[in-house]
Amino acid sequence: MKIVIAPDSFKESMTALEAAQSIEKGFKDFLGEKITAALIPMADGGEGTTRSMADALNGTIHTKTVTGPNGNKVQADYAILEEKNTAVMEMAEASGIGLTAKEKRNPLKATTYGTGELIKAALDHGVDKIILGIGGSATNDGGAGMVQALGGKLLDADNNELEAGGSALSQLRKIDVSDFDKRLAKTSIVTACDVNNPLTGPNGASAVYGPQKGADEKMVALLDDALHHFAEVIRSDIGRDVENLPGAGAAGGLGAGLTAFLNASLEPGIDIVLKETNFYEKVKGAELIITGEGKIDHQTVYGKTPIGVAKASAKSTNAPVIALCGQLGQGYEAVFSHGITAAFSIMPGPESAEAAMANGKEYISKLARNIAAVKFSDR
Amino acid sequence: MKIVIAPDSFKESMTALEAAQSIEKGFKDFLGEKITAALIPMADGGEGTTRSMADALNGTIHTKTVTGPNGNKVQADYAILEEKNTAVMEMAEASGIGLTAKEKRNPLKATTYGTGELIKAALDHGVDKIILGIGGSATNDGGAGMVQALGGKLLDADNNELEAGGSALSQLRKIDVSDFDKRLAKTSIVTACDVNNPLTGPNGASAVYGPQKGADEKMVALLDDALHHFAEVIRSDIGRDVENLPGAGAAGGLGAGLTAFLNASLEPGIDIVLKETNFYEKVKGAELIITGEGKIDHQTVYGKTPIGVAKASAKSTNAPVIALCGQLGQGYEAVFSHGITAAFSIMPGPESAEAAMANGKEYISKLARNIAAVKFSDR
Repeated sequence: MKIVIAPDSFKESMTALEAAQSIEKGFKDFLGEKITAALIPMADGGEGTTRSMADALNGTIHTKTVTGPNGNKVQADYAILEEKNTAVMEMAEASGIGLTAKEKRNPLKATTYGTGELIKAALDHGVDKIILGIGGSATNDGGAGMVQALGGKLLDADNNELEAGGSALSQLRKIDVSDFDKRLAKTSIVTACDVNNPLTGPNGASAVYGPQKGADEKMVALLDDALHHFAEVIRSDIGRDVENLPGAGAAGGLGAGLTAFLNASLEPGIDIVLKETNFYEKVKGAELIITGEGKIDHQTVYGKTPIGVAKASAKSTNAPVIALCGQLGQGYEAVFSHGITAAFSIMPGPESAEAAMANGKEYISKLARNIAAVKFSDR
Repeated sequence: MKIVIAPDSFKESMTALEAAQSIEKGFKDFLGEKITAALIPMADGGEGTTRSMADALNGTIHTKTVTGPNGNKVQADYAILEEKNTAVMEMAEASGIGLTAKEKRNPLKATTYGTGELIKAALDHGVDKIILGIGGSATNDGGAGMVQALGGKLLDADNNELEAGGSALSQLRKIDVSDFDKRLAKTSIVTACDVNNPLTGPNGASAVYGPQKGADEKMVALLDDALHHFAEVIRSDIGRDVENLPGAGAAGGLGAGLTAFLNASLEPGIDIVLKETNFYEKVKGAELIITGEGKIDHQTVYGKTPIGVAKASAKSTNAPVIALCGQLGQGYEAVFSHGITAAFSIMPGPESAEAAMANGKEYISKLARNIAAVKFSDR
């Protein structure tokens, strides 16, 4: 009997691989060698995607010192999937909101420069493809910093390079890409992007995501104007119109920069991971699919791993899909109409989140054993 | 498809019937009318037995004001199962340790008088049988108070009635049962007793259970001597030797008094409940058995409801037995070698016991729905 075990990571408790291995242990505790389990560490483009894909595809993790969102130096991890000649990275590692203490955040100045440096580091490995997760950004610069790090020149009226950050874009007069990193032309950039926001306007990067990065009403207006101006110069100098492209507003407009300068595609993160891990093939013939994530609630149906796994499974098999989590949150039953058969919390009793996270591997293993017993007690 | 739902109560959260109904709801949420569920509220002779048996057997709950363990008046519930002409009661309702504030407890003086009054109240209903749970006692009087309440005279050297409590038994010279309630001769008394302690000695009532009722070393010695003396007078005046009878030491020696004076049988509580609820018949043809209790841990295998249900089920069916609980405690896996197929906590995430107890019905219902989905997703 074959089962597929494809969980996301459980934040602060288990990597996706650790979760998968622990679940497998639980199933084997009950079924012994009667089952074979395909372990596929999953991710949806968010936190943990680099690690999950490295674990799923036999990749290696590398670390690069890059420029953080506020100019400080930060250590950013990325993965090289040697067998696929592909890099995987998360912009949050280089330009994430968690890299700067709350009181030091400045959405006017925060830069994606480090993300550009991280892309450069991947290019140094000679990869054909870069998969880039763009959640959790601190920035609102339209990807301007990234462009600069990769050799693009963003010049003001005096032909001086723009300073870091979104607000400086209002000074932009000319874009010069003559020194842009040539390797990018031969490298496909696949961006994991789960939002459809345009670059500007009431649904744009500044208005929707600016406030959570520390922008007040005045800053939002200023940044929105600056990104609008950036889009106009891109249109005239690069010949691409990205202002209203769905997803252009992701990650403070990094979606726009990636599309305009790197010809990146924007795809739902879970779709990228399912494709790259060959999930659709691996799930064939499985009698049961186990997935999971730290929390399952009404938001899970919006592009999160468990639903992606359920939908992908449904294309190849009628097998039930069981989701395990740390917390079954408000409205989690919504997942049942999106392909999830059943959902369980790993909690063995009343306990704090901290204690549960510390014991996550044991708890999920024991839960898996009990689910195996319910499902297969007649075998 | 037929399933049997036979949980114990979940203390401070749900009665056994409420738990069973909530579990049924969860199964029906998934399976609709494809299942029929036999709901059998369970108990093991401990707290909740009266209510569970009343709910299981269409009985009625009555309340009687009786003498508490320390002389105060207490309200004690008992059940009349009209269809079986049987009463069900718990000695803890009349003589339980929880009825007296800790600082007012006195194991030397605590009396089972109220338990005798409760038995008398049942006799007034004209029952043929009384089922008596004897867990949770405050007393160490060998059932002397009960005997007095039922008309037995326990006299000292001056032919005066003994005062309440175990320590007074050292003054006992003569037992006179000429005025003992005559109805008892026609009434069978079935005692739910899960311990094998003799009345006296190092494994006796005073040594083993005295300390948890507040007895210090000196009191234990005094009470042990008094019970030994009681046993000697019973031997000479009543002609029964109960001192070393297994279970005589239960409930502060109430086991001895019940056996000697009321000719009571002592049986494991769960066995009584299984028999009285006709469990063995009802479980025939079931495809799945659901049981449960507030907590499942390594102690569950010692006569608790889930194990009793599992063992009884195994006599009639190969159906898997799934146990649900609030908390899967230390070493709960022991239940797997005693007939339980799988065990789950109802917790949906990190949460306090208080919050979980307040939401018990909802949580167990949702868990049941998910278990149904795992078990029967192909139907």
